[in-house]
Amino acid sequence: MIQFQCDYNEGAHPLIMQRLLESNMEQTIGYGEDPYCNQARLLIQQACDNSNVDVHFLVGGTQTNTTVISHILRPYQGVLTAGSGHINVHETGAIESTGHKVLSIASPDGKLTATQIEEAVLAHQHEDGPEHMVQPGMVYISFPTEVGTVYTLNELESISAVCRKYALPLFVDGARLGYGLCSPESDITLPQLATLADVFYIGGTKVGALFGEAVVISNDTLKRDFRYSIKRHGGMLAKGRLLGIQFAQLFTDNLYMQIAQHAIDEAMRIKSALQAKGIKFLIESPTNQQFPIFSNAQYEELSKKYLFSFWQRIDEEHTAVRICTSWATKSENVDCLIEDIENL
Amino acid sequence: MIQFQCDYNEGAHPLIMQRLLESNMEQTIGYGEDPYCNQARLLIQQACDNSNVDVHFLVGGTQTNTTVISHILRPYQGVLTAGSGHINVHETGAIESTGHKVLSIASPDGKLTATQIEEAVLAHQHEDGPEHMVQPGMVYISFPTEVGTVYTLNELESISAVCRKYALPLFVDGARLGYGLCSPESDITLPQLATLADVFYIGGTKVGALFGEAVVISNDTLKRDFRYSIKRHGGMLAKGRLLGIQFAQLFTDNLYMQIAQHAIDEAMRIKSALQAKGIKFLIESPTNQQFPIFSNAQYEELSKKYLFSFWQRIDEEHTAVRICTSWATKSENVDCLIEDIENL
Amino acid sequence: MIQFQCDYNEGAHPLIMQRLLESNMEQTIGYGEDPYCNQARLLIQQACDNSNVDVHFLVGGTQTNTTVISHILRPYQGVLTAGSGHINVHETGAIESTGHKVLSIASPDGKLTATQIEEAVLAHQHEDGPEHMVQPGMVYISFPTEVGTVYTLNELESISAVCRKYALPLFVDGARLGYGLCSPESDITLPQLATLADVFYIGGTKVGALFGEAVVISNDTLKRDFRYSIKRHGGMLAKGRLLGIQFAQLFTDNLYMQIAQHAIDEAMRIKSALQAKGIKFLIESPTNQQFPIFSNAQYEELSKKYLFSFWQRIDEEHTAVRICTSWATKSENVDCLIEDIENL
Amino acid sequence: MIQFQCDYNEGAHPLIMQRLLESNMEQTIGYGEDPYCNQARLLIQQACDNSNVDVHFLVGGTQTNTTVISHILRPYQGVLTAGSGHINVHETGAIESTGHKVLSIASPDGKLTATQIEEAVLAHQHEDGPEHMVQPGMVYISFPTEVGTVYTLNELESISAVCRKYALPLFVDGARLGYGLCSPESDITLPQLATLADVFYIGGTKVGALFGEAVVISNDTLKRDFRYSIKRHGGMLAKGRLLGIQFAQLFTDNLYMQIAQHAIDEAMRIKSALQAKGIKFLIESPTNQQFPIFSNAQYEELSKKYLFSFWQRIDEEHTAVRICTSWATKSENVDCLIEDIENL
Repeated sequence: MIQFQCDYNEGAHPLIMQRLLESNMEQTIGYGEDPYCNQARLLIQQACDNSNVDVHFLVGGTQTNTTVISHILRPYQGVLTAGSGHINVHETGAIESTGHKVLSIASPDGKLTATQIEEAVLAHQHEDGPEHMVQPGMVYISFPTEVGTVYTLNELESISAVCRKYALPLFVDGARLGYGLCSPESDITLPQLATLADVFYIGGTKVGALFGEAVVISNDTLKRDFRYSIKRHGGMLAKGRLLGIQFAQLFTDNLYMQIAQHAIDEAMRIKSALQAKGIKFLIESPTNQQFPIFSNAQYEELSKKYLFSFWQRIDEEHTAVRICTSWATKSENVDCLIEDIENL
Repeated sequence: MIQFQCDYNEGAHPLIMQRLLESNMEQTIGYGEDPYCNQARLLIQQACDNSNVDVHFLVGGTQTNTTVISHILRPYQGVLTAGSGHINVHETGAIESTGHKVLSIASPDGKLTATQIEEAVLAHQHEDGPEHMVQPGMVYISFPTEVGTVYTLNELESISAVCRKYALPLFVDGARLGYGLCSPESDITLPQLATLADVFYIGGTKVGALFGEAVVISNDTLKRDFRYSIKRHGGMLAKGRLLGIQFAQLFTDNLYMQIAQHAIDEAMRIKSALQAKGIKFLIESPTNQQFPIFSNAQYEELSKKYLFSFWQRIDEEHTAVRICTSWATKSENVDCLIEDIENL
Repeated sequence: MIQFQCDYNEGAHPLIMQRLLESNMEQTIGYGEDPYCNQARLLIQQACDNSNVDVHFLVGGTQTNTTVISHILRPYQGVLTAGSGHINVHETGAIESTGHKVLSIASPDGKLTATQIEEAVLAHQHEDGPEHMVQPGMVYISFPTEVGTVYTLNELESISAVCRKYALPLFVDGARLGYGLCSPESDITLPQLATLADVFYIGGTKVGALFGEAVVISNDTLKRDFRYSIKRHGGMLAKGRLLGIQFAQLFTDNLYMQIAQHAIDEAMRIKSALQAKGIKFLIESPTNQQFPIFSNAQYEELSKKYLFSFWQRIDEEHTAVRICTSWATKSENVDCLIEDIENL
Repeated sequence: MIQFQCDYNEGAHPLIMQRLLESNMEQTIGYGEDPYCNQARLLIQQACDNSNVDVHFLVGGTQTNTTVISHILRPYQGVLTAGSGHINVHETGAIESTGHKVLSIASPDGKLTATQIEEAVLAHQHEDGPEHMVQPGMVYISFPTEVGTVYTLNELESISAVCRKYALPLFVDGARLGYGLCSPESDITLPQLATLADVFYIGGTKVGALFGEAVVISNDTLKRDFRYSIKRHGGMLAKGRLLGIQFAQLFTDNLYMQIAQHAIDEAMRIKSALQAKGIKFLIESPTNQQFPIFSNAQYEELSKKYLFSFWQRIDEEHTAVRICTSWATKSENVDCLIEDIENL
């Protein structure tokens, strides 16, 4: 079976494996304070064009979301998110486990708007007794979103502005950040993101690393004691250098963006083939996740050879699935899929 | 500097690195349900001589302790531990972050006794209003302990018996399990541990792996929904196979025990050299951590070449330090250290 | 101003005040183990026609909801509720503060159906990785609901059946229980409720007491150690007898139902007057809360003399308000209001 | 049986009951924003000689401790307390339920010293990796302590100074505040307390009220959003005026101090009788709790007529008990007890 069901089927980019191997028997101190982590921090600061941001390395996405959100919020505050946000549906209550309500806002395309955020804030400022409701304390968005859509620079600026108006830190989940930045529909750069968000992370797990997410904190007031929060949430890797080595490699010679671009290129080829075949999409995604709606017969036929993610039943006769590409997707597998789509 | 300050200075055993490299571009499903994890589970069940135990793989120790303890306890219960227990002092309140009190019992050598456990339970069964105190809900011990000591089979049997008498699940933190099992003073085997403990874990991070801890659950009532708890605590690695590959390798051809034995052998050589020199120890440890008390002059001299962990000030003139060996310790570095000890 | 904005404007029923006064200087032991609490327990068991239920007294509703829900759920579980449920909107995240997600289901009339519950359960049993989502662990409904509606016996039986089918304890928030039981549209009795729910509470704060909620647990598996949970959540009143005295009085000579009936009678008089005037309602409520939609002019006129709760803006010209009656509502105030409605 | 086992055996001071009765059928708005609460706030500000303090009313002590502590601490911080502190032993893990470690310091007399606090802070500032330990975030002391002892002004000034030096808010649990302020060994006044503590509470439950604790916040940075924290912890009483009425009465005509003085006077009479009889004390307490060590025969004899709290077994032949007086203690009962002590 050729697997297109997610973007974490393979290990790491070969250059990363090579660096891990070369450094394997070196001795370093632990917990992210080794020279490799320091090097990776520097490279990420350079990529953000901002030597003032704090950079921390965590192992996975749920852990990162939980650590960042619980670090920011006061106990009685909640986090605003699109209803489809990963923290709202697919983290087994990890955010709530830290005592915070996830305040979800309906969003068919997975994106929040500045207006929705402002409305949500005002709805919680009930003149008579706001303290009976959770206080919105920050905003969480994903870039790209859970359903592959991306914000434009203009949209992100509006969101950032409304967040600052109401003193709500803006946190951008970048588990698939590379795929968002390389999307043909995105006009956002890493330095812009570092300016507009108060904190965001650069996903490694889904973009070339064995595992790892790099948290970038640009808002000074959020920097203090972040290592305590990492440790408390079990996110401080003993051999922290494993993260440093990986991110140092990803941010050397623009590797992160290059491999992300590959995934987008392959996704766009699949998308074109689907469109050419007249297949509709559940959501119009410009990133590495595509959500075609197959007839059940089509789905069955392709499932003989390919693994997709079942997404949702559309009607008796149709099913939406998710097809993912990644940094590791082989072009010959995509060729093969395209041919099979054409032959449907 | 030659580093003896901890047992996680290097990467992973070369055989593990090789397997990671070989499998790197294979496609597998995620979250620990891949063939490598299944293989590792089977090998660990075989090593435990028990095909009924559940085996789960997590990334690190704090995460594992938090996940297991919060999975077991009812909300108003606490966990009994030696005062020096890792969960009590060095996890930044990770256990408390899940709402549970750590009920610490003073223990100079890091070990709990069956009698201490029974006394603690009875002290919380105050006839008049026990509900005003936290209810002891489980027992946590480390094997070996934070200070390198080990339980004998006899001691562990007594603890297990008192735990069962009071329906307290017994959880054994095995972050350094290999070093305990290989200790000349330990007469406990893995199958015995799996029988006497309700849940324990086999530490990989400190014994040959890049990272990873294998949780073994033998008590049936604790097995249900453990994967939910892993996910909720951010411990479900997307590329779960990385853990499966490592543990499969560690439990092939007895590698885990072999490399642990190496660490013990080297530690015993250092210990002998220290004893020969007349140097006293803070604690009599039969495992890979040694706690000599150096005069400040000795400490200063050795610190020119070696990195140890400062442990505690003994008096104006003396300092206790921790010297660790590990699976990765080079014999020539130990030779060198021994020579320098002799020359002190 | 005559206050109709809520059902907790006054103190307690005079008979309760009298009993508090008479017993004031008696000495009793604390924490709910005094003779008055025992008497109240017995009376409530009799009213439930079930000598097997456990009865506990807590101070307020948010505390009671938090204590019951966190007592029942496993850490990774959440509670199913209507979106309008008090725990979802007006408790400042108290449920989430205990680590649990509130799983809300859209419901325009504040009621859940058995079908909705079953669908929600099935939606969380995703064949492929249910552990990435919170597991539904119990069902919370209010009787009457936040918007004054009531379940029929038939509806409650269906809900109870589906809960038992999926092993989900059913918890009924009875903050206004008396007003539900006395509603002309309700055919449920207290003994039936005690049979169909696993745990529910009898609201005192809004039905005649100074404060206090009586939790009734009929499911044996939920009874164990409930006092620990009360204490842990700050709900164990030192002078517990204050609760016992109040509930003993409320359950003597059917006082609880009599005074609830009074509130319903007065509410129905107001409702009729509003209907006669041709005023529409936001929700058709058969209990002590009425939700008329006034023109802004009408609202302004009545607001000169009466205090209502603003509920929501309907359009530029209309506003929905909440008018509450209670055990303490004076008939002459209702007469007065009716006259003013007629004169609008 | 005459009850001396605790200081919450009776209801409320008759003047309070009278005010509750008089106001019973008045209509007020809820949640502590009524005129009675406002009046009580003003009276307490006057008693503190500080019109800038915020005053909030909660129902009970555990709830108050939990609300204040969780409001102050950052997630990874803990609260320093004497080992005997109520939050450490008798609150069923309520503090830990909010995710915070209780950092206990051994203290035979229940008091912390400024030196102990400083040492504890420094011990958590381990140069190498402080983030592996919980960070001390505030200091909790009781006045008087759990074992009846009191701080002198000088001691409290030192504690306050060290707390400010390390930016640790100082929280004083005043569940028995009146009894501390009236102690012959205390030279602290309410205005001084309001200056030296960042937040403290004035206990009503044990000093004349049916229930209720008045939280006084003098540190501006802790004031924001405190009502959210109250609500989230289930402490916002619907009929908040019940608290306002009680505290307004207690702070009218110096009632609070007068009735506290009565308890002290009676306690000192009992103490003298015990001393005259040559009976030793477990702790030398100058407040309303006395801890005599009786021979078992003495204990048995007195237990025929009096209820004391068993405190601890001293040896085979002796038992320490707690004898409490309160605002409600009848002098004739004390006379009687004294006579029986003399006749032992």
